[in-house]
Amino acid sequence: MHFTLKNKDTLSRARSGFLTTPHGDVRTPVFMPVGTQATVKTLTPRELISAGVKMILGNTYHLYLRPGPELIREAGGLHGFMSWQNPVLTDSGGYQVFSLSDLRKIDDDGVRFQSHIDGSYHTFTPEHVIDVQRSLGSDIMMVLDECVGYPCGYEEAMKAAQRTTRWAGRSIRYFYQSEPFAGSPQALFGIVQGSTYEDIRRQSAESITAMRFDGYAVGGLAVGEPKSAMMEMTDLCTCMLPEDQPRYLMGVGKPEDIVSAVGLGIDMFDCVIPTRNGRNGTVFTWSGKLVLKNNKYQRDFRPIDENCRCYTCRTFTRAYLRHLFMTREILGLRLATLHNIQFYIELMERARNAIEAGGYSKWQKSFFEKYRTHETEPVTENEGGNRV
Amino acid sequence: MHFTLKNKDTLSRARSGFLTTPHGDVRTPVFMPVGTQATVKTLTPRELISAGVKMILGNTYHLYLRPGPELIREAGGLHGFMSWQNPVLTDSGGYQVFSLSDLRKIDDDGVRFQSHIDGSYHTFTPEHVIDVQRSLGSDIMMVLDECVGYPCGYEEAMKAAQRTTRWAGRSIRYFYQSEPFAGSPQALFGIVQGSTYEDIRRQSAESITAMRFDGYAVGGLAVGEPKSAMMEMTDLCTCMLPEDQPRYLMGVGKPEDIVSAVGLGIDMFDCVIPTRNGRNGTVFTWSGKLVLKNNKYQRDFRPIDENCRCYTCRTFTRAYLRHLFMTREILGLRLATLHNIQFYIELMERARNAIEAGGYSKWQKSFFEKYRTHETEPVTENEGGNRV
Repeated sequence: MHFTLKNKDTLSRARSGFLTTPHGDVRTPVFMPVGTQATVKTLTPRELISAGVKMILGNTYHLYLRPGPELIREAGGLHGFMSWQNPVLTDSGGYQVFSLSDLRKIDDDGVRFQSHIDGSYHTFTPEHVIDVQRSLGSDIMMVLDECVGYPCGYEEAMKAAQRTTRWAGRSIRYFYQSEPFAGSPQALFGIVQGSTYEDIRRQSAESITAMRFDGYAVGGLAVGEPKSAMMEMTDLCTCMLPEDQPRYLMGVGKPEDIVSAVGLGIDMFDCVIPTRNGRNGTVFTWSGKLVLKNNKYQRDFRPIDENCRCYTCRTFTRAYLRHLFMTREILGLRLATLHNIQFYIELMERARNAIEAGGYSKWQKSFFEKYRTHETEPVTENEGGNRV
Repeated sequence: MHFTLKNKDTLSRARSGFLTTPHGDVRTPVFMPVGTQATVKTLTPRELISAGVKMILGNTYHLYLRPGPELIREAGGLHGFMSWQNPVLTDSGGYQVFSLSDLRKIDDDGVRFQSHIDGSYHTFTPEHVIDVQRSLGSDIMMVLDECVGYPCGYEEAMKAAQRTTRWAGRSIRYFYQSEPFAGSPQALFGIVQGSTYEDIRRQSAESITAMRFDGYAVGGLAVGEPKSAMMEMTDLCTCMLPEDQPRYLMGVGKPEDIVSAVGLGIDMFDCVIPTRNGRNGTVFTWSGKLVLKNNKYQRDFRPIDENCRCYTCRTFTRAYLRHLFMTREILGLRLATLHNIQFYIELMERARNAIEAGGYSKWQKSFFEKYRTHETEPVTENEGGNRV
């Protein structure tokens, strides 16, 4: 994998570039829809492609439990198994072990946990999750990290960040010893932890960037902390991460958070918000969210967004979509998800275009002028393992 | 609406033809997927089109309750509301009133019932359901009939058939007085009832065909009676129905039942089997059904059917589909439904081609040689309102 920096914005720290992977190039900043169980919920690969999706995320924890890495390897990796020919990033499973599984027991070796599906016992170590991701054949693999919630005491945050650093060292050693899937080079990213503590974040970023990773992620955010803390930590981390390597803000987020984080120099994002909100009937427009079940859409024969180019907006009215949600029809979940994915993809396109035109700050300002957000809400999109 | 008879098979009573409707021509024999609540469950209109679907069925009972006929009229009828430009047939709601709703009270005027959704009271009369179907703007409307279950006593079956005949008379009178939707001519079909009693069926067919309907349906079958009874009644009815008008066997059925009924001279079918079975993970092939959750497909990297041209078979393996069903992913429901609809469409294509080549009986025989059925099972696909 190779990262090429293309443009740097003048008044912000936003940057554009591209990732070169064995499954094609990806322009950054990029948003990766979440394909937890080898499917971006409700959508087909060809729908993702036609919405402009270039890269998706797979969840190691879920795929390890079902259908298991051996079966996916036999099927030709995650690409072959789910029939997705573009790049894939897999997380390490750490986040889900800490948020979803029962009876976790963590020590320096790794983490022992019980499956949330059948209560069976499993252990993830830094080496094991690389083996699993080798079987998945992802283009970008993530190291095992220890994730803490919010709020988290200083001592606990420090311990977790230090353990994450020790695990990162084992990960990178094992990475160079282990065989890539089907001879196709797989990249490995390190993860900065440290909760909302500036000095722990600094220490973590220093130790992690001292190792030779292909890219760096900012982890442990969007877990319930105030938005200001999320942005401060992101700012601090991006200042410390190497400029010539990709930077990935894990599990973020709302459109407004992505827009802010791009301005701080983040290149990659993943989040369940567009898909989960779609299944709940909440859809995005350039002036904010619409809740399709709302009574006021009962006789609203306009599309979600008159300028949107997605199939949903070109074909169906708000009144029809509302009916589908009121009657719990699966087509509603699909159509709202498709629209939201298209919105996120277009958000990233507009952001990239603004960076390449050298006017990101101006574009960011105009985005916030139109987009209604609820700034007082805590950032909770990741709480309780809902990156699933 | 106009029906043109094209070919008659030599050794069977199978026939091919086409329906000319305001929304396009439809070759017969035709299968109509069921779009209960203004959506063929899980699929988009463009997926239906690309699977070769030419006509769908809408359920008046459901659409009357949600979102209501006035809203659908405002949206441009069912075609406009759900963005389906091809022909639509709507049932009268009678079947669902008798199978789904609570506290039915029937008299000669009509049937009073409580909504299965919120317990609210409603009355369907022959005139009212035509008004509702006028608002839906369907190309073919059905008369209100009294549906009996199986088994049903002789007296009860007689009474219901006679009431159905009286209602048919009121329906046709009202039909000629009421305004078509948006000036587009809408057709009206009569329905033959009579449970499994030969003489009641004869009487019903005689009285119904004495009225000037645009087509005739055989109702009240596939409600739990033995397959032999279903076929005998169908045989008897098609012998009495006018040759120059379309014949519709309501709520049928399994592939093998459709193949048999085509041989008896039926032109039109609707059934929830391909969509409902799809959502349950049961898919059709030319050698019979596959239950995708079966363990034996865990590492089966073949498509459902290697010769099938549907997106599911061109793209995904049985192992992947099984995984989607085991993990309850919505994409599984979609992909299996899509395949089943394609199978039914292709079944009808093959049947039509065989008729037009003059060799239906031979084709029918070869179909049954390959297709594994479970002949001893009672015909239950319609029981309990499951045409929904």
